[in-house]
Amino acid sequence: MKFEIKFLPQNLTTHAPEGTTVFNAANWAGLAIDSTCGGRGTCGKCKVRMLQGANSITDADRRYLSEAELAEGWRLSCRAPVHTESLVEVPRLMTSPKAALLGYGRHVVLNPNVAKLYLELAEPSLEDQQPDLARVLTALDKEGYQAHADVAVWRALPKTLRESDFKITAVVCGDELIAVEPGDTTDRLYGLALDIGTTTVVGALVDLNTGAVAAVQSTLNGQAPYGADVISRSSFTMTEPDGLAILQTRIVETINTLLDQLLATSGVARENIYETVAVGNATMLHLLLGIDPAPISVAPFIPTIEQQVTLPASDIGLRLHPQATLSTLPHLGAYVGADIVAGVLATGIGREKDEKLRLYIDVGTNGEIVLGSSRRTLATAAPAGPAFEGAQIRCGMRASDGAIEGVQVNHDVQLQMIGGDLRPIGICGSGLVDAVAQLIECGLVDSSGLLLRPEQARGRVSDTLVNRLVEVNGVRAFLLSAPEEGIVLTQPDIRALQFAKGAIAAGVAVLMDYLGVTAKDLDEVLLAGSFGSYINPASARAIGLVPWVPVERIVAVGNAAGEGAKIALLSFREREAANRIPEFVEYVELSGRPEFNEVFTEALSFPNVKRKA
Amino acid sequence: MKFEIKFLPQNLTTHAPEGTTVFNAANWAGLAIDSTCGGRGTCGKCKVRMLQGANSITDADRRYLSEAELAEGWRLSCRAPVHTESLVEVPRLMTSPKAALLGYGRHVVLNPNVAKLYLELAEPSLEDQQPDLARVLTALDKEGYQAHADVAVWRALPKTLRESDFKITAVVCGDELIAVEPGDTTDRLYGLALDIGTTTVVGALVDLNTGAVAAVQSTLNGQAPYGADVISRSSFTMTEPDGLAILQTRIVETINTLLDQLLATSGVARENIYETVAVGNATMLHLLLGIDPAPISVAPFIPTIEQQVTLPASDIGLRLHPQATLSTLPHLGAYVGADIVAGVLATGIGREKDEKLRLYIDVGTNGEIVLGSSRRTLATAAPAGPAFEGAQIRCGMRASDGAIEGVQVNHDVQLQMIGGDLRPIGICGSGLVDAVAQLIECGLVDSSGLLLRPEQARGRVSDTLVNRLVEVNGVRAFLLSAPEEGIVLTQPDIRALQFAKGAIAAGVAVLMDYLGVTAKDLDEVLLAGSFGSYINPASARAIGLVPWVPVERIVAVGNAAGEGAKIALLSFREREAANRIPEFVEYVELSGRPEFNEVFTEALSFPNVKRKA
Repeated sequence: MKFEIKFLPQNLTTHAPEGTTVFNAANWAGLAIDSTCGGRGTCGKCKVRMLQGANSITDADRRYLSEAELAEGWRLSCRAPVHTESLVEVPRLMTSPKAALLGYGRHVVLNPNVAKLYLELAEPSLEDQQPDLARVLTALDKEGYQAHADVAVWRALPKTLRESDFKITAVVCGDELIAVEPGDTTDRLYGLALDIGTTTVVGALVDLNTGAVAAVQSTLNGQAPYGADVISRSSFTMTEPDGLAILQTRIVETINTLLDQLLATSGVARENIYETVAVGNATMLHLLLGIDPAPISVAPFIPTIEQQVTLPASDIGLRLHPQATLSTLPHLGAYVGADIVAGVLATGIGREKDEKLRLYIDVGTNGEIVLGSSRRTLATAAPAGPAFEGAQIRCGMRASDGAIEGVQVNHDVQLQMIGGDLRPIGICGSGLVDAVAQLIECGLVDSSGLLLRPEQARGRVSDTLVNRLVEVNGVRAFLLSAPEEGIVLTQPDIRALQFAKGAIAAGVAVLMDYLGVTAKDLDEVLLAGSFGSYINPASARAIGLVPWVPVERIVAVGNAAGEGAKIALLSFREREAANRIPEFVEYVELSGRPEFNEVFTEALSFPNVKRKA
Repeated sequence: MKFEIKFLPQNLTTHAPEGTTVFNAANWAGLAIDSTCGGRGTCGKCKVRMLQGANSITDADRRYLSEAELAEGWRLSCRAPVHTESLVEVPRLMTSPKAALLGYGRHVVLNPNVAKLYLELAEPSLEDQQPDLARVLTALDKEGYQAHADVAVWRALPKTLRESDFKITAVVCGDELIAVEPGDTTDRLYGLALDIGTTTVVGALVDLNTGAVAAVQSTLNGQAPYGADVISRSSFTMTEPDGLAILQTRIVETINTLLDQLLATSGVARENIYETVAVGNATMLHLLLGIDPAPISVAPFIPTIEQQVTLPASDIGLRLHPQATLSTLPHLGAYVGADIVAGVLATGIGREKDEKLRLYIDVGTNGEIVLGSSRRTLATAAPAGPAFEGAQIRCGMRASDGAIEGVQVNHDVQLQMIGGDLRPIGICGSGLVDAVAQLIECGLVDSSGLLLRPEQARGRVSDTLVNRLVEVNGVRAFLLSAPEEGIVLTQPDIRALQFAKGAIAAGVAVLMDYLGVTAKDLDEVLLAGSFGSYINPASARAIGLVPWVPVERIVAVGNAAGEGAKIALLSFREREAANRIPEFVEYVELSGRPEFNEVFTEALSFPNVKRKA
C-alpha cells in the first residue's frame, strides 16, 4: 500500500510504500534533505516539519529536537516512517552540495559513504581520563557521526593519538570508524568502482572529494580460460575439486592487477582507497565472494545471496586500505544481477518523476531486459547465447584490433575495423549485427533469415554484390572482405544471430505484453554494456533486436553498470536507492512461462522492411 | 534524572534513568519479561501494557502488535524508553524458564546469547526461487530472530542446505547467524567463561542448554616470565620491540592450551563452543586483544577501551568454533577492570532491590574495592604491592604445596600447609595474614607493627613463644616452623604487610567517607579473588585489612570474577546488566586525592585489640 507524500515548498509529490522513511521517499523523488549520517538517525540534520501525518516521537527525535520543535511537528525525516498521506515542510539545504553528472544524465549530489574528519582532541589528564576510543567516538558524535570501531582501530589508537599530539583524521565508512590517521589527511579520499563482467573487468578510481575519476582501466577477467560464460564457469566449480578456489583467486588477482595499474596511472596511494563498490552478474559476484555459484546454473536457479552485502575487502584478498570495505549491489534474480541494478540506477528507470516508458537492454550471452517507468517496472533475462560475443560465428572474433565493427552495403561493401585502417581479420558482434541489417535492407536476406542465391539476387542488387554471394563448405555465404582475406558471413551465422536476437526480442515482447504496451509507447530504448555501446541503433532495429521505434529513441548508454557503481560510491543516498530497486522492479522468470516458446518462434523473423532505394 | 516505574501484578517498583527501556528496567529489578531476541525488538514477545506513561508507537510495535493492542497501550517493552513515571502491566511468563544458582546467591534465568534453532526449510522450486540466505533468515525471523550473516555462512550455505535436504540447525549469536549445521544439533551448545588474571587464568566450559559446568581448569598465565604484575608487563611492551606481540601470543597460547585440557576432560567438541566471555583487568584484556597497555601504566592512566567489546574469537587466534565470538565485560577505570565488573555482577552489589550496604574487596597486587548498595555505589583501586602474593616476604611463596596457609598461635604455634601434612617450605599470603593476626592478638606485635624483643615478651606469653623470637641477619623475626625448617616472619615482612593492607584500608576509608558510612553500617564484607577466598576472615579483620565488623559478616566469595563471566555467558540479560554497571558505579581516582596520604598513614596501624586471655 502506497501513500502520497507532498513536499513543501518544492511542491513535489511522490508515493511511497507504508514504512518508507520520509528521508528515503524524498531522496527517491530527487529531493535532497540535509544529512551527514546517511539516514541512520545519528546526525540530527535531516529534520522536517510534518504538517500532516506527523509521526510519533522517537528517541532520536528527542535527542536532536527541542520540546518546542517536537510540538510543532518537527521530526528527523530518516526516523519518520510513512503511515498515512503526509504533507512535509523541508528546510532549504544549508550548504549548496557538490554534484556531478554521472550515468545517463543523472545529476548526483556527492555524499559518499566514506567521510574523513580532521579532529583536534583534548589531551587526557588525571581530570579527564576518558579512554582513547571513547575520546575519538565522542568527538565524531559531535560532528554527527555515531560510529563504532573494531580491533584494527583499537590497536592503532594509542600510538597514533600520542604520536600526533591527538590531532588526527578519522575515516568513517558507513557507521564504522575504519581508520585513524595522524594529522590532516582529508584531501586524500578515494574509492574504487568495479564492474565485473564475465569477459571484461572495468575499474574506475574515483576521488570521493570531487567526484572526478582519477583513472580508469579495463582488463580481461582472469577466469576466462575456465569458460567463456557463466554456465561453463559454474560447471568448472562442479567438476574440479578446487574449482571454486581457483576461480575466486583468478578474479581477485585480476582486480589486484587492475588496481596496480590504476595506482600507477593516477599516483594515488593504495592506503587512501577506503571503499570499493562491485557490480556484476550473480555468478560473478558469488565467485568473487568465494560462494559456490553452482545452484544458480541449474534449475530452479537459486543464488545464495541476492541482497547487497558489505564486508572487509581484505576478507577476499583485495589490496586496498587494510580496513577498506567491499560493497555489492543487490541482484534482481539469478540472471538479472547487480550489473543491471547498477544500470537501472545509472539511468534512473522507474524512479519517482520518471514518467517516461523506457526499455533497457544489456546485450550479451544473457540478454538482460528492464522495461518500465515510475508506474511499474519489470525485468527479465533471455538466454541469447554467444553469437553477440562473436562466438560460434564462422569468422567471429571478440571486439579487438582488426575486427570488423561496422558494415555498409550499397553498390559494394564498406567495412570499418577496430583500430582504424587495418586489414580485417574477423567480425565482432556489432559488425555482425551491421552486416545482417545491411543485407536485410538491401534485400539479400529475407525476413525468414534466408540468404538469397546469386540467381535470386541478380537484377535486384549490383553485380558486385551478387558476386559476393558464395558457397563455403557447402553452405551459402556472403563475402564481406576482399576474396584473399576470406571473411564471410554464412547462412548458419545468420541463423545464430536470429536465435540470439530472437531470445532477447521474445523477452522484450513478454515484458511489453505484461505491461500492456506496444512499441509506439516506448519513449526510449537504452542499449547498455560493452556490446550495446558499439551497436548501430538502426541496425539493432533492422534485425529486430529492439522494437521498431524512431531510430533517435535508441540510445547507446555505454557501461551503465560501471556508472551505477560509481554513483553508488559517490552517494550513500543513491546506494540506498539502489538497494531498494529489488523492492519495485518485478522479476519475470521466462523459463516458467508456457507462452515463451511461441513468442520466441515469432521473434525469430526479421522485420519486413527494405531500404527505400 | 530517574523515573519511578511500577510493575503489576508483581507490585514491584524500580527507578530508572530517562531513556532506559522498560525491558531493561524490569530485568534490572529482577523481573524477567519474556523475550528470545534479547531486547533487540525482533521477537515481539516482550509486550507489556503501559497503564501510565505510554510511549509513542514504534515500527517494531506496529510489526508485532495489532491496532487494538496498540490502542490498549500494549508496547514492546524493549522498544519503550521511559520518559515519565510509569505503571506497567507485565504478562506472566508463558514458559517457566530454566534457572541456575550462580555467583554469590544469584538466581540466574538461563537465556544465553547463543541460540540453536532446528529448521526444516521448504526446498526451492521454479515457483519459489528465494535465495538460500533469505530462506534461512526468513525462517529465523519467524522464530523471533532477526539475524544477519557474514561471508563464512554464505560460503557454507549452498552445500550444507543441499546435503542436508534443507534440514539444518542455525546457530545465532547475538544478532548474527554464525553457523548453519546439517541436521539437528541443538543438544550441543557450549560456551567458555574465561577469568584472565595477571597470575592465573581460569576457564570454565559451560553447557548453555543446562547451565552445567562441563569442565573447569586453571593454569598459570604464560606471560608470567615477563613480569609478575601489570606494571612490569606494560614495561615489557615499552622496552621490547616485539613485546606486545610476545605477550599477546603468550596469553592466547595459554588459553588455547587450557581449552585443549577442557575439551579432553569433558569430551566436548571444539566446534560446539560458540562463544567465550573473558574478564580480567584492563591491562590483561588489552594484551589479549593486542592493544598496547602502556598508556594504562603511566599517568594519567588511559586505557584505549573501557567499554565491552565483541569480536570474532579467531581474530586473536582462539581455537573455538571458527565463527565463535569473544565478548569482554566493560572496565570501570584503568585499575578497576572487567574482573571487578564481573564480581559486581556475581554478587549483585548495587542492583535495584539490593538495600544492603556491602563492601567488596579483591585483594591482590592491586586491591580493587567496591562499596555500595542500590542507593549509590563507588569503586576504587589501591596499590597494595606484592606482599599478599607472598613476594618480597623473606620466606614468602605463592600458594602451592608446602606453603603455610594457616597459623594458630596459642601456647605454641600450629601450622597448616597447602597439600595437607607436608613439611612447610614457605608462607603464602593467607598464612602471612594469619601469622601477623595471631601475633597481634597474643600481643607479640603491637599496634604500630613492632615485633617485641624477647625481654619485652617474657611473662606475657609462653616461654615456648618467647624462644621463637629470634634475630635473622640483624633484624627481628619470629620463628614459625621448627628451627631446622627455618621459616621465619621478619620485622620487614610485617612492615610489608602493613603497607599492603594499609593501602587497601585507606581506599576503603576514602570510599566510606565519600558515602558517609562507618563500619557499623556495613551489612557484608565480601572478600574475592584467589587470595580473598583463602584468607581467614577473623585474621583479615585483626590486621585491619577490612573494617571492624562482626566476623560473620565477612564472607569469602571465591572467584567472583569467573562466576560473573559464567553468568554473562548464560544470560544475555545479565550481560546487558553488566554492560550497564559503569553507568551507576562511580569510579574514584585515589591518586588525584590530596587527603589520601594522611588516610593511608592512619591506616598503617593495626587495630588495637588483644585476645581475651
